[in-house]
Amino acid sequence: MGNMSEGYVVAILGATGAVGTRMIEQLEASTVPVAEIKLLASSRSAGQVKQFKGQDVVIEEATPDSFNGVDLVLSSAGGSVSKQLLPEAVKHGAVCVDNTSAFRMDPEVPLVIPEVNEQALYRHHGIIANPNCSTIQMVVALAPIRQQFGLVQVIVSTYQAASGAGQSALNELRTEAAAHLEGEEMAAAILPTKGDQKHYPLAFNLLPQIDVFEDDGYTHEEWKMIHETKKIMLDDMNAGEIKVTATCVRVPIAVGHGESVYFEVADRSTTAADIQAVLTQAPGVVLEDDPANQVYPQPLTAEGKRETFVGRVRPDFENPGAFNMWVVSDNLLKGAAWNAVQIAERLVADDLVRVPVEQS
Amino acid sequence: MGNMSEGYVVAILGATGAVGTRMIEQLEASTVPVAEIKLLASSRSAGQVKQFKGQDVVIEEATPDSFNGVDLVLSSAGGSVSKQLLPEAVKHGAVCVDNTSAFRMDPEVPLVIPEVNEQALYRHHGIIANPNCSTIQMVVALAPIRQQFGLVQVIVSTYQAASGAGQSALNELRTEAAAHLEGEEMAAAILPTKGDQKHYPLAFNLLPQIDVFEDDGYTHEEWKMIHETKKIMLDDMNAGEIKVTATCVRVPIAVGHGESVYFEVADRSTTAADIQAVLTQAPGVVLEDDPANQVYPQPLTAEGKRETFVGRVRPDFENPGAFNMWVVSDNLLKGAAWNAVQIAERLVADDLVRVPVEQS
Repeated sequence: MGNMSEGYVVAILGATGAVGTRMIEQLEASTVPVAEIKLLASSRSAGQVKQFKGQDVVIEEATPDSFNGVDLVLSSAGGSVSKQLLPEAVKHGAVCVDNTSAFRMDPEVPLVIPEVNEQALYRHHGIIANPNCSTIQMVVALAPIRQQFGLVQVIVSTYQAASGAGQSALNELRTEAAAHLEGEEMAAAILPTKGDQKHYPLAFNLLPQIDVFEDDGYTHEEWKMIHETKKIMLDDMNAGEIKVTATCVRVPIAVGHGESVYFEVADRSTTAADIQAVLTQAPGVVLEDDPANQVYPQPLTAEGKRETFVGRVRPDFENPGAFNMWVVSDNLLKGAAWNAVQIAERLVADDLVRVPVEQS
Repeated sequence: MGNMSEGYVVAILGATGAVGTRMIEQLEASTVPVAEIKLLASSRSAGQVKQFKGQDVVIEEATPDSFNGVDLVLSSAGGSVSKQLLPEAVKHGAVCVDNTSAFRMDPEVPLVIPEVNEQALYRHHGIIANPNCSTIQMVVALAPIRQQFGLVQVIVSTYQAASGAGQSALNELRTEAAAHLEGEEMAAAILPTKGDQKHYPLAFNLLPQIDVFEDDGYTHEEWKMIHETKKIMLDDMNAGEIKVTATCVRVPIAVGHGESVYFEVADRSTTAADIQAVLTQAPGVVLEDDPANQVYPQPLTAEGKRETFVGRVRPDFENPGAFNMWVVSDNLLKGAAWNAVQIAERLVADDLVRVPVEQS
């Protein structure tokens, strides 16, 4: 098993996907000492060659035995793959950072945004869950506000990029857009979500469905934003009640989610300048908020960056303590690959790359 | 001057724009008896030929004298043109339906959505204002809800199409999208708004700025949604206080605005089924709300239709009496040309195509 002096054996599960590809890049640029990298994917991708720090790495088919000698797994191969393989990886002694929704609401599994609840890592039993992309960027912005002024209610409407549904959805958007510009019919086979019956074009359109519908009329994406937000923020020492509701909409952009976030703080004397001052100091946040010079977050300018960008902070003049703001981040980086690698960095720094022995 | 037996002389001011073109089509398909049509535009467009009911019509340059003998003006040539020419048209005895923001907040000018406050037409002094596109579709959906259950607060986030900024903005989006798909740089010269200093690409991007910024950090579009909504809804007999706040975002689609609307009704025992039942009966509204069959409003399916489409109606489970819904309408039709022609139809039906003599 690796240690700090020689580095860790790291496996990336789902190494050919939109997120997996970026996990490789983010890991290369991270402080995690990598002694050996293993790139794992489905049998279909096995044999392909990718680069890691200038070296060729042959992609292997992911099986339970793939985790022999592995210290750390970064996983983004889909919920069913995670459910099947990560418990095997833990049995082999590996610590897993999982980007799927498979384990997020498991009370035994920490759901972590390092800027917000790093301390939850100390409670891991081998698996740490990476929150949903749209949840992460919202909570990065809201947590420091909550810390300072208390947080009573959150009402969010999202503007989510096609890449959140994977590389194939992103390809579909581009193909549709090209067809539409040529005056041709658009053929949809993936969006709004692979797992549902009907498919609609996203190019030059808006789809108010992300993931499947729950029985209560909310989509599973909306459910995630509501429940993951509570799990992450109520994890800290200032536990209390936060009301959260969400409307999630897929928009025809490639990368970078936008979010219109309305929130009410407990301290009703709080001003927009107070909120801005907190965001200026907040870890992982860049305040882009200068209306006079038309400065505000945009997906095209956030793409490729690790930070969460916040702007358009302004009070609801009829509701003291309530504010609107606009939040943008690269959904494939802070929303997925970077948050996972950032967790790995913290695990290394806190000497937590080891599976605790369960007491029986 | 025309009358019902022979029809009216109707002028369309701004006949070559995205809205003006649709005003011609909507007028052709309306119940307004048209004895003669005059198509007016800037000197640049004068001499061009358009069709009305199969007849060629030569576009004339708009001047104060253009309104000689005109009974009814439909105007969509920009606020400054309206401010300059509509008072002249009224002097010539014409009744004007103005699609610009020039007169909307003038207390003497009715701001009308026929389904909501048709009775305000009886107070006109020659000019009737057509509300802002994003306001109209929201209020068409909210007014019947308010009528039944009372309305306390509205929090809206918009997803607005490029055509709301005119034909040139729509052309810019298409040019940018084609360039981006070819891997070329995108050149922006119009959006987010012609009247501001900086321009950003909209294709594959989101712009949280529509119109210019006010000093308080809200954009003028957001200001319109807040204040026009109150003017229209408090016009009726159930006057009371409604809190409204808005975040307006331009999205890379051609036609059809989307709106994520969160609202609180006064009657806290109201259910989502109650809201849906009201919307099913509401004039101008089509309820598209069947999550189990993935039925919800989309811009591509709303394009070319006069109705406002509402779906995704669901309660905020933590806030009794509060709901989320998703509203889509063709911003060039109900949001502009159709609402204006619909006002013209009602003026004709109510015998209001005459300028009242002012008492001095």
